[in-house]
Amino acid sequence: MRRASNISRSLIRACFAPQFPEEALRAGPGLLLAPDPGPLLSLAQGLCRENGQQQRRELTVSHLYNAAIPQGWDSLYRGQPVDPFSLVKEEIESVSERLRRSIFTGIPTLRSAAEYFFKLGAEGKRLRPTMLLLMASSLSTYVPSPDFLTVDDSPPNVHPSEERRRQQRIAEITEMIHVASLLHDDVIDNAEVRRGLRALNSVFGNKIAILAGDFLLARASVSLAALRNSDVIQLLSQVIEDLVTGEILQMTSTDQDLLSLDYYVRKTFHKTASLMANSSKAVAILGGQPKDVSELAWQYGRHLGLAFQFVDDVLDFTGSTLQLGKPALNDLRSGLATAPVLYAAEEHPQLRSLILRKFKSEGDVELAQQLVFDSRGIQRARDLAAEHAALAAQAVQSMPPAVTEHALLCRQALTDITSRVLARKK
Amino acid sequence: MRRASNISRSLIRACFAPQFPEEALRAGPGLLLAPDPGPLLSLAQGLCRENGQQQRRELTVSHLYNAAIPQGWDSLYRGQPVDPFSLVKEEIESVSERLRRSIFTGIPTLRSAAEYFFKLGAEGKRLRPTMLLLMASSLSTYVPSPDFLTVDDSPPNVHPSEERRRQQRIAEITEMIHVASLLHDDVIDNAEVRRGLRALNSVFGNKIAILAGDFLLARASVSLAALRNSDVIQLLSQVIEDLVTGEILQMTSTDQDLLSLDYYVRKTFHKTASLMANSSKAVAILGGQPKDVSELAWQYGRHLGLAFQFVDDVLDFTGSTLQLGKPALNDLRSGLATAPVLYAAEEHPQLRSLILRKFKSEGDVELAQQLVFDSRGIQRARDLAAEHAALAAQAVQSMPPAVTEHALLCRQALTDITSRVLARKK
Repeated sequence: MRRASNISRSLIRACFAPQFPEEALRAGPGLLLAPDPGPLLSLAQGLCRENGQQQRRELTVSHLYNAAIPQGWDSLYRGQPVDPFSLVKEEIESVSERLRRSIFTGIPTLRSAAEYFFKLGAEGKRLRPTMLLLMASSLSTYVPSPDFLTVDDSPPNVHPSEERRRQQRIAEITEMIHVASLLHDDVIDNAEVRRGLRALNSVFGNKIAILAGDFLLARASVSLAALRNSDVIQLLSQVIEDLVTGEILQMTSTDQDLLSLDYYVRKTFHKTASLMANSSKAVAILGGQPKDVSELAWQYGRHLGLAFQFVDDVLDFTGSTLQLGKPALNDLRSGLATAPVLYAAEEHPQLRSLILRKFKSEGDVELAQQLVFDSRGIQRARDLAAEHAALAAQAVQSMPPAVTEHALLCRQALTDITSRVLARKK
Repeated sequence: MRRASNISRSLIRACFAPQFPEEALRAGPGLLLAPDPGPLLSLAQGLCRENGQQQRRELTVSHLYNAAIPQGWDSLYRGQPVDPFSLVKEEIESVSERLRRSIFTGIPTLRSAAEYFFKLGAEGKRLRPTMLLLMASSLSTYVPSPDFLTVDDSPPNVHPSEERRRQQRIAEITEMIHVASLLHDDVIDNAEVRRGLRALNSVFGNKIAILAGDFLLARASVSLAALRNSDVIQLLSQVIEDLVTGEILQMTSTDQDLLSLDYYVRKTFHKTASLMANSSKAVAILGGQPKDVSELAWQYGRHLGLAFQFVDDVLDFTGSTLQLGKPALNDLRSGLATAPVLYAAEEHPQLRSLILRKFKSEGDVELAQQLVFDSRGIQRARDLAAEHAALAAQAVQSMPPAVTEHALLCRQALTDITSRVLARKK
């Protein structure tokens, strides 16, 4: 699984590193994985000689890939699992580092609060930035140069001149908006634990948590403005509004809403999927994709986000506090009826009154848990997640043919993410 | 005072109303106010005849004004007080109405919360939008057509094609950001009263107040993005960050900070003046002004904002709860040492320990009040406000010559605002 991506990475490095043009040749052995590497190897060697020292950067990976695809790379990579996280690991590290630098402020308390969830080890799974960089590469006509693996040190208010840097900013901005919403949600829910750490509000108090959230939104807006693309600015501003709408939908639901799976899915779109959908579309737009393709990027993010949340709902029943980094049965204890409960209520109508009183009477949480386990609720919620994961994968498959082998590999990784989201245990 | 602006308004209407070209003539009597109206009246009549029915809209007010200025309008208006609020009243009404419409959401609780401070009668003084529309006109080469007095009903995410509409959006966005910051500040300060109404957090609860603030920020971002001017987007995103920074500076000050007037002024810039400075500059940029002029617009907003806040500090001592729409001595009771106290502490060093313990011991508030009144604190705070008001007026005077008489009138109004800010009682 890792070999495929390692070859790809070493090949990219080799062909682009200005000081090592001959590494393009040494990368040759990697090509042995191809069904018949002989002609490819000769081709690579020939190209290296032709381009020589001066034009070494002209020897792009896509020369090799374009030659390789008709000769069997396509069948080699298509359908083979790839590790999406290791594929963009280095670039994600530099995006994370830039993020830490870009939320710098001279005010110590604000700095500590804003950094809290971005410190090494506290960043969470970084699913969103990983997905976004893979989406960028999936639709690209070139393989990102190793130059883009370094930390972008231009100030947040300066327009990045390279497309890849602009796409990295979307990954950064998305994380800022995501964490800002976590901070405000945790104040609202009086949360105590998040990502296995004490929730920020319980460390710094509600006031600082509110302000740190506002601060991250403000910094995100400044970065966003620098991208100078009003469609993109609007997509991500819409996310902030959707996050608020989702939280309010959750807080203000009527009895009928509380029992409705449709309402629940709608709320989940706003709270979780909108960020993934709109940021994914933003990356496609910045990559110069036409409307139909950026729409597919949106669909991918939307379905992945929904699948992610439905799995989260299941894990709240099946996971342990230690695994989850937050208390198990947290949803029930917070009064929330998620997909497994709503399905279970179809089999056990007595669950309805528990849902309506938000599991507040003594024994409600335990009874609800038991009724969910005594029903097909968990299985049906898993099925719903699987359905959306499949739709996400389908969106990737519906994209126009990949131009480079690297793009193909990244699409495979995006598909792989959909399986990983289903299989995750935390 | 009102006559000058009434003439101006009727003249604008007359010259632009397509159905009443002859009203341009009837407006003639208004010209009688000019030192020697004879030549002007003939000129106006001549222009009307020349342009005829078909070209009646060609007869712009600036034709008249440009002819009028050298003939004495300049001396008529310059230095004469104008009522800034009545000068843009109609346009402000339509901006307010648009604002109410643009924060519409299908979610009832969110709608009620977001609308709370924008309802008729609850909008406050609307100093910011008034200042911004006057700034726009001050720098304009044309007089805004009455078309722009109607409510702009294009959606927030659509780019307004006319410059004046884009400038109106800044007024709208500024009010949204301002109210969003009030909502979050009131949660943070546990405020109970605002603008003579119960604070939103005390009506809807902290959670809804946080979310309504986020919602307004998100809507403001969407509107801002539609302006498609990254400098402008950045100026107003910076405001959000400054508002947060100001609040944090206030919350996290050291003993040395608490006693420092410089620190206090810095905090005040962030909390109050940045919004006025940056929005004023944004209006100038959207009006196509060069850097030096937009910088003067920034200076005007900055000094006006500082003057406004220092007067506010004084009113907290000298005003009554009824006048202010919030409790008198609110700052002391909240633990805040504002300009009058910091000045008074220079005369009465015993105030320092009260400042450091944030007036929390019994009798502190009363003792501090007495020491302030027994000092030159209030007068010196007033002087500081007057100094900044003068600098604001000076920024307007430093602008390149006004192109139309209307622009001149609006500059006079901007200067008048600086006096009104000093004289205000609430």
